[in-house]
Amino acid sequence: MASEAGEATGAKSDLKLQFAPFSSALEAGFWHQLTQKKLNDYKLDESPKSIKGFYYNGDAVGLPTRLTLEFSAFEVDGPTPIRCCPALGTLYNMNTLDAFKATDKKAMLEKEASEIWDAIKSGTAVTDPSILCRFILLTFADLKKYHFYYWFCFPALCFQEGIKIIKAPALIEKVFSSKQIVALQEAYDDLCVKRGNSAVPYFLLKYSEDSVQMADLKDWDSFFSDTKKVSVGVYDPCTLSQHPGWPLRNLLLLIAYRWGSKLDVLEVLCFRDRTLQGSRSINHSLTFQLKLPPLAPTSVCPKSVGWEKNAKGAMGPRMVNLSECMDPKRLAESSVDLNLKLMRWRLVPSLDLDKVISTKCLLLGAGTLGCNVARTLMGWGVRHITFVDNAKISYSNPVRQPLYEFEDCLGGGKSKAMAAVDRLNKIFPGVNAEGYSMSIPMPGHPVNFSEATVSQAQRDVQQLERLVSEHDVVFLLMDTRESRWLPTVIAASKRKLVINAALGFDTFVVMRHGLKKSSVSDSSSLFSNIPGHKLGCYFCNDVVAPGDSTRDRTLDQQCTVSRPGLAMIAGALAVEMMVSILQHSEGGYAVASSSDDRMNEPPTSLGLVPHQVLDHYEREGFHFLSKVFNSSHSFLEDLTGLTLLHQETQAAEVQTLR
Amino acid sequence: MASEAGEATGAKSDLKLQFAPFSSALEAGFWHQLTQKKLNDYKLDESPKSIKGFYYNGDAVGLPTRLTLEFSAFEVDGPTPIRCCPALGTLYNMNTLDAFKATDKKAMLEKEASEIWDAIKSGTAVTDPSILCRFILLTFADLKKYHFYYWFCFPALCFQEGIKIIKAPALIEKVFSSKQIVALQEAYDDLCVKRGNSAVPYFLLKYSEDSVQMADLKDWDSFFSDTKKVSVGVYDPCTLSQHPGWPLRNLLLLIAYRWGSKLDVLEVLCFRDRTLQGSRSINHSLTFQLKLPPLAPTSVCPKSVGWEKNAKGAMGPRMVNLSECMDPKRLAESSVDLNLKLMRWRLVPSLDLDKVISTKCLLLGAGTLGCNVARTLMGWGVRHITFVDNAKISYSNPVRQPLYEFEDCLGGGKSKAMAAVDRLNKIFPGVNAEGYSMSIPMPGHPVNFSEATVSQAQRDVQQLERLVSEHDVVFLLMDTRESRWLPTVIAASKRKLVINAALGFDTFVVMRHGLKKSSVSDSSSLFSNIPGHKLGCYFCNDVVAPGDSTRDRTLDQQCTVSRPGLAMIAGALAVEMMVSILQHSEGGYAVASSSDDRMNEPPTSLGLVPHQVLDHYEREGFHFLSKVFNSSHSFLEDLTGLTLLHQETQAAEVQTLR
Repeated sequence: MASEAGEATGAKSDLKLQFAPFSSALEAGFWHQLTQKKLNDYKLDESPKSIKGFYYNGDAVGLPTRLTLEFSAFEVDGPTPIRCCPALGTLYNMNTLDAFKATDKKAMLEKEASEIWDAIKSGTAVTDPSILCRFILLTFADLKKYHFYYWFCFPALCFQEGIKIIKAPALIEKVFSSKQIVALQEAYDDLCVKRGNSAVPYFLLKYSEDSVQMADLKDWDSFFSDTKKVSVGVYDPCTLSQHPGWPLRNLLLLIAYRWGSKLDVLEVLCFRDRTLQGSRSINHSLTFQLKLPPLAPTSVCPKSVGWEKNAKGAMGPRMVNLSECMDPKRLAESSVDLNLKLMRWRLVPSLDLDKVISTKCLLLGAGTLGCNVARTLMGWGVRHITFVDNAKISYSNPVRQPLYEFEDCLGGGKSKAMAAVDRLNKIFPGVNAEGYSMSIPMPGHPVNFSEATVSQAQRDVQQLERLVSEHDVVFLLMDTRESRWLPTVIAASKRKLVINAALGFDTFVVMRHGLKKSSVSDSSSLFSNIPGHKLGCYFCNDVVAPGDSTRDRTLDQQCTVSRPGLAMIAGALAVEMMVSILQHSEGGYAVASSSDDRMNEPPTSLGLVPHQVLDHYEREGFHFLSKVFNSSHSFLEDLTGLTLLHQETQAAEVQTLR
Repeated sequence: MASEAGEATGAKSDLKLQFAPFSSALEAGFWHQLTQKKLNDYKLDESPKSIKGFYYNGDAVGLPTRLTLEFSAFEVDGPTPIRCCPALGTLYNMNTLDAFKATDKKAMLEKEASEIWDAIKSGTAVTDPSILCRFILLTFADLKKYHFYYWFCFPALCFQEGIKIIKAPALIEKVFSSKQIVALQEAYDDLCVKRGNSAVPYFLLKYSEDSVQMADLKDWDSFFSDTKKVSVGVYDPCTLSQHPGWPLRNLLLLIAYRWGSKLDVLEVLCFRDRTLQGSRSINHSLTFQLKLPPLAPTSVCPKSVGWEKNAKGAMGPRMVNLSECMDPKRLAESSVDLNLKLMRWRLVPSLDLDKVISTKCLLLGAGTLGCNVARTLMGWGVRHITFVDNAKISYSNPVRQPLYEFEDCLGGGKSKAMAAVDRLNKIFPGVNAEGYSMSIPMPGHPVNFSEATVSQAQRDVQQLERLVSEHDVVFLLMDTRESRWLPTVIAASKRKLVINAALGFDTFVVMRHGLKKSSVSDSSSLFSNIPGHKLGCYFCNDVVAPGDSTRDRTLDQQCTVSRPGLAMIAGALAVEMMVSILQHSEGGYAVASSSDDRMNEPPTSLGLVPHQVLDHYEREGFHFLSKVFNSSHSFLEDLTGLTLLHQETQAAEVQTLR
């Protein structure tokens, strides 16, 4: 027990009253909620916050006098647990451990004490005595480590001298008759009903042989006929048989200030109310009589005490390490969130993280670019990532493709799409990743060898259409030009944001495709509400249609021979671009809206390329696609007018030569 | 056997001679060497290359008539295995599988055949008959998969009609006396000694009851007195009892062309020379007599045959998959090399990869930047990577620090430096990685609490000095400014290239520090031969000396709150910068040499900052460092003149206000 409060080790010998101080009892739920408040609401705000704890007068013998703060502490207007008394407090949550340590705790206590003193003097403490039982909580939350530093204070005003015990504390069952005890219990319950609460912290008390009456503090003058000797009751959280708990302290000051001059003997009832094995009892409540000492006549705020001792019994803060008792997977999730939420504290308060985190990303290609894009998406907290790739992991991959390891290459190599999913789960168990080891049909790569290959291609197209539908953003991260064609067409048709990245040796392109205006609203897409336009795609400016580019390529042309750092740069930029677009108020529409001119149809026939293709795809579906797969360049070039363009160009050149 | 060559299934009935064709025997060593040649020498060069195989006349019965190519095949002037005949060949290694398939094999064979025919006509085949036993090897090496496609051709000129057998093949032990056989063996060995070889492919032969004489082809006219019936010998790799091997074919054409008009009967000795259980025997050599058909009088090159059949007995190439029989770790190493070497084929032929791969890199910091830098270094094939970090892996790390996973966070977290090493080994077992979980002493972070802390700091400084000495490049990848100070000073003193990367929220810096001119040459450093200069470092332009920046920082200031893609970009750029500097002819000296002006001392006293510090460090060592660690900003600011600068600036401001 606190030395400045002190337990009466020999109450009878010196006859001075001593009080059992509060012990703070902080539930894990409180820290969890503090974490959320700090991350999402308080951020860098260190100003004092109102919180609410509670105490209970039915604890079993041996338990400390607890003041409990739980999950609900931040809802000061919310309900208090039944039969408990609320205690209002002030939270000072500091931004740094240094600020926590450097806080002037004496000043903080004195500020709170003088507020109590002012309430005593003004009389507001009489009408609302809850001010008498307040607390201060000073905290620093190290959210990276889940270490919480805290220091409680239960301010108590002190008499200049000790409080003389006239009649020593005794259990009421030794002092009162059974009839009186029953009447006491009924009177208390009546008071609670009258107040509309399930617990009343302070009350006035009158009793005879067979009845008990109770009243509020404010009724002092009308309730008591003899004000030389009065009885008061206190809802007492202490379980000790010789001592009252802390809540009595400030009440005694109030009584001494307001009514002490006339008062000779103060009888105190420490009301304790236990339910043991289904049977309620108040028999262990205490009663004793006091002689209150005089207060200094100057009306200066009395000395105050109240900072809680630490676990070692010394003055000092406490620390709780919650990382040890949290589920590691939950811990990983909240740690990842934390890093992201920190961005909103100072740097980008308007960042809409939920929009990023909930975006469903389809990664076509799980090679050098795919791995780096997935890693960056994980860094941004994106939870839903789907890979499509038909390749297996080869020995040269792991040093450049950061989701694979040497072991993945053995025995012919694991499927990239599947291994990538496994790795994401190993990195962050909270991820929702899927893999599809499938081929993407390509222009100029014929599928008409047999019925089996045609129907396989048809299944692949359907699968891809379904995947594009189910995602918000499609990343094109393949290593050939023509494999980007089909997803470009499908995503354009389904109005999905397309982010496209491709590598050269020391050059790269990272671009987004335009979003065409949607004629019907499609509520399943993030971008359904974006007024579309006719920005181009990867293929719009090309004068050669995509065809088989893998035939007859040398090894250095087959592999993407590229400076190793490039894929990391391009992959990271692709994701940062996606995030920036998602954060833009106009989303995928952002660029075009900056200039009205861009809304107009480009003047040449080339501007219509994607729309001719789109029209055919939307009208004819797989029938159109299979013609594209099975034909050389010429089919798409005829369709889009490129053949004509080439002929005209050639004719113009011949003309020039004449 | 090849149909156009055909084995005599019923030699006696049709009495036409048939030959056992060569079977190609390609050792794994040959493919390994081809891989190296392709990667390092040939690159995209498809022009024909001379190679050398060999055949042996001592194989056990049942073995095919093998032409062997092994590791040494590319050294045409190198030694041939003892008792083997060399066979010269032409390698056509194509760049693509399509080119391999599309090669005009008929034209290739005819070209080779006509060279043989020209040599027969001109007589050079008489003086050097090795032209009679040549081969073509057409290959495509898929170095990504270790699949090797190949097709052999052993060109043979054909008579228009079959070669009539006058006397059927018989073992010499059935035809010759023991004495003759001994004499035959002695005569052959004498011929070898005279030629200085351990095997002679073709020879002329005369024998009596008790003696044998041999001579070279060119001695035909002087050696034979009767040119109507002569005997010739051929070193015969065939093991069949009724057929000669392929090398005889073109010899018969040569004999028919040059001496056929006079010749009536040609006796052939197929010389076979076996050592079985330590005992040598030529008894199984064959002898038979032929009547050569006439050649067409036009002197037009005869029809030729020779493309080898595949394993199924059909015309077509063969493929060998070496990935299955290679050690996976070796395979991983060569695959990683492959990807890098491809850069030199077309894009950067002058790239000095060895300089990059052999660079020893010290990474100070194994966090977001450190992980990304290590990954990029691995991509560049850098083998020697050392991490220094004192932190443990926390739950928020794996999604941003690509060397760690969720499992690494459990139980308080593994040491970052150690876990990073483990991961590099998992990615690429050929890496040589080390980790040091240690702190780097920092200015303003006092170490003078006790003797123990001072000596720990001293050990840390010594360790860091040793590490910097043992590496070529030092990467500064920490998350505070002041932790970069000590390694900056040490690396500057030891003349090591320093690459420094630091992150903001959406900004970053990637820079290299200058290399000061070295007064003594230090041959252990990559940069020892670089004339140094006085370029700046991270601290040169600062007007505040480094001090404790972690005190009193809020959570978002403690963590590097940064767009997740940024570390990947900065990490990748840091490595690419290192590689570019390494490739520059002047290395770390590159920038300054572009302008003579930069060599001059900057005009203000600020320009001297690093040198004042360096001078003190080199003179006083740890004594100086401990003063820096234990002092606030003021010590370094006094030393470097910053204090004076601040005072002057303030004075100037006051002046302005008047």
